[in-house]
Amino acid sequence: MIQPRTLKGFRDHLPAQALARERLLEVARRIYRSYAFAPIDTPALEYLEVLTGKGSDETDKQLYRFVDHGGREVGMRFDLTVPFARFAAQHAHELGLPFKRYHMATVWRGENTQRGRYREFMQCDFDTIGTTSPVADLEMVLVVHDLLAAIGLERFTIRINDRRVLAGILERLGLAGQATGVLRSLDKLAKAGPEKVAAELAEQGVAEAATTTLLEMAQLTGPNAEVLPRLADLAGEGRGGAGVAALEGIVAGAQAAGVPSGRLVIDPGIARGLDYYTGIVLESFLDELPSLGSVCSGGRYDNLAGLYTKQPLPGVGASLGIDRLLAGLEELGQAPARETPAELFLAHFDPAHVNDYLAIAAALRQAGIAVEFFPEPRKLGQQLKLADKRGIPAALVIGSDEFKGGTAQFKDMAAQTAATIDWQGDIATLVAAVRERLAGTAAG
Amino acid sequence: MIQPRTLKGFRDHLPAQALARERLLEVARRIYRSYAFAPIDTPALEYLEVLTGKGSDETDKQLYRFVDHGGREVGMRFDLTVPFARFAAQHAHELGLPFKRYHMATVWRGENTQRGRYREFMQCDFDTIGTTSPVADLEMVLVVHDLLAAIGLERFTIRINDRRVLAGILERLGLAGQATGVLRSLDKLAKAGPEKVAAELAEQGVAEAATTTLLEMAQLTGPNAEVLPRLADLAGEGRGGAGVAALEGIVAGAQAAGVPSGRLVIDPGIARGLDYYTGIVLESFLDELPSLGSVCSGGRYDNLAGLYTKQPLPGVGASLGIDRLLAGLEELGQAPARETPAELFLAHFDPAHVNDYLAIAAALRQAGIAVEFFPEPRKLGQQLKLADKRGIPAALVIGSDEFKGGTAQFKDMAAQTAATIDWQGDIATLVAAVRERLAGTAAG
Repeated sequence: MIQPRTLKGFRDHLPAQALARERLLEVARRIYRSYAFAPIDTPALEYLEVLTGKGSDETDKQLYRFVDHGGREVGMRFDLTVPFARFAAQHAHELGLPFKRYHMATVWRGENTQRGRYREFMQCDFDTIGTTSPVADLEMVLVVHDLLAAIGLERFTIRINDRRVLAGILERLGLAGQATGVLRSLDKLAKAGPEKVAAELAEQGVAEAATTTLLEMAQLTGPNAEVLPRLADLAGEGRGGAGVAALEGIVAGAQAAGVPSGRLVIDPGIARGLDYYTGIVLESFLDELPSLGSVCSGGRYDNLAGLYTKQPLPGVGASLGIDRLLAGLEELGQAPARETPAELFLAHFDPAHVNDYLAIAAALRQAGIAVEFFPEPRKLGQQLKLADKRGIPAALVIGSDEFKGGTAQFKDMAAQTAATIDWQGDIATLVAAVRERLAGTAAG
Repeated sequence: MIQPRTLKGFRDHLPAQALARERLLEVARRIYRSYAFAPIDTPALEYLEVLTGKGSDETDKQLYRFVDHGGREVGMRFDLTVPFARFAAQHAHELGLPFKRYHMATVWRGENTQRGRYREFMQCDFDTIGTTSPVADLEMVLVVHDLLAAIGLERFTIRINDRRVLAGILERLGLAGQATGVLRSLDKLAKAGPEKVAAELAEQGVAEAATTTLLEMAQLTGPNAEVLPRLADLAGEGRGGAGVAALEGIVAGAQAAGVPSGRLVIDPGIARGLDYYTGIVLESFLDELPSLGSVCSGGRYDNLAGLYTKQPLPGVGASLGIDRLLAGLEELGQAPARETPAELFLAHFDPAHVNDYLAIAAALRQAGIAVEFFPEPRKLGQQLKLADKRGIPAALVIGSDEFKGGTAQFKDMAAQTAATIDWQGDIATLVAAVRERLAGTAAG
């Protein structure tokens, strides 16, 4: 006998988890589509040369790679950005530009599982390529906002910055050549604190006055209307000023589109990696769970697919961390605890009436109610126990006597109450009564 | 520069294909859920020993396998049944029985691509395990029916048989020991014709009278009410009779649940493989495309997970061939030709009004209308050309003059007509008018 087990770092999704994930994906799909992002898909396996050297040394090391039946070196995708770059280069002529796509798919990384990481997880990306318009930047912000709001979150914050602000300040301070080191140090601000960062900057030869400016910038907080002029002073003209103006435009556009003030915060401390992003950068946090980290992050980049095509493809996009967000919702008690999509349990009571049950179940399903009809005429208590375990909100019990009398017992499982429905043998009447009572259940 | 290309046998899904596939998956998800099937997911990678020796020699050969970073022999799943067997054995105690699951996921097989097969495709399975109740068998039939009907197909046929009928007839004919060979020959009936099958049976030593009986059975056609008694005569008592009675029950139950007569046909010629299925077997065909083959197939099996657990897990289920069905819908011209989910194209005309456009787009999206707002203020003709190429049904044009006058141009792209909306600067009025006009478009 073979031991049934999953590989280290991999996991099964049981119904409760899978339902919660499907719900998030459905919401994301709806929001992405409302902004006219179109779905695409790419293969799980790519030529190895497409994948290696695109992320970091770490992603190269973590890559699942092998030689296929045809002797080709292949790898399993470790993110959705690299395959999208390959896809865009290959299909740009058919797609038409600007092109907006979303992609929800599984990726694989042979990560160290000791850090609680999984080796298989889902990504959920959206990008607009082929335009440098600030409207595309703004749409990224709006999509992230609408997405988190549609999930049902009330307290979340989208933090934005523009990489040009820092670049402009570094230019003004004569530190343009040291950008990488300075950024790396500033990125540690939240965890290490200003003293340690200042010490690191000093080690890199950054003058004290410059360090003061950089720390002042990275620690700017307050309402956007206050942060913006102070940031403009620090950034000056040129590149930095362009970044501040872009942030100003984003704030105004988000307001026009109805984003409640306070949910979108300019945070000059956000840098997001070092090389890839060139304009707006975005992170988003659940206010009640700051330690969870950003649940949706992204930004603008100059060229998506420079390794595969000479056609420049500037773009902007973000990635929703489905698994992280699910973990957060669970921690907040906002993930549904149901193990089944069933809204109604139909007890299998009298086997002589099986075709009547089937007709009733069919009518209920036709009316959009998900029905679990128990397949066997077992003891009622046993059936209801399973319905309860699975979290089905209500049960409908119709025995021989009820069929004779044209009635039915409707049980609210959470409230542990029951009511009699008088349907006189007319299924449409029964369906209407069930629908009404379902809306009134404790879980409904 | 790296050549952007996909591996042989693999393909990208561009938006039109991805949208069509998402639609099918959404319909399948809705129907599965309405019958209380719950989603699950399993890893793409499994221990090699879980996957090998479970399908055929061919699937073993086609398996994508390698050694992972931890020195484990692993393989990529080639179907969803084997992982489900492993999953059921591992989690049966938490799940509660009977357990109904659906699983929509990608599988990989290093197939010979010369036959037009892909090496990566999606499966879409549903199964009920832990019960031998005929209600579960019937539900499989109903799910397949509701699914194909919900996709919008009108002409399709679900063909069912019960493996016990043939088994009973073979027993009566004294051919129980030769079942495998006889079945293999009978399976060729549709392609090779009765003469060749008769010759093959004779080679196997099947007597002429027995061959006549077997061919009569396999070729029985007609309304279910005529086929059933003739089949009952051939099958006799015992196992064969139980099979006929089960088919009778399915037909009655399907009628009770509202399946139009003619869509469910008893076809004693259907055998579906040799060893796995033990009761009802099912195939389903698009009437206009019989050569496409079965788009959804399944049946009842005695024990799902005997290789992983001693707990017997009988079940019944089927698999929707998403890619085959999509190919069929395309051939029938029933696959949507849109490249975007956008219902409305909002032209970017006057950059001074960008925040007004954003407010309008937000209100339209809030009202459930998917809006493509062009990110750049390009020439109107150029913008509308892209909207047309992508198949967006309608466009909304509001220039400086329209903003002043409180009007808007609504263009029906397919009909090539335009109308003026008078919204007086009130966005709610505009949204209501757009919604009404969208419903009246040529594409709407």
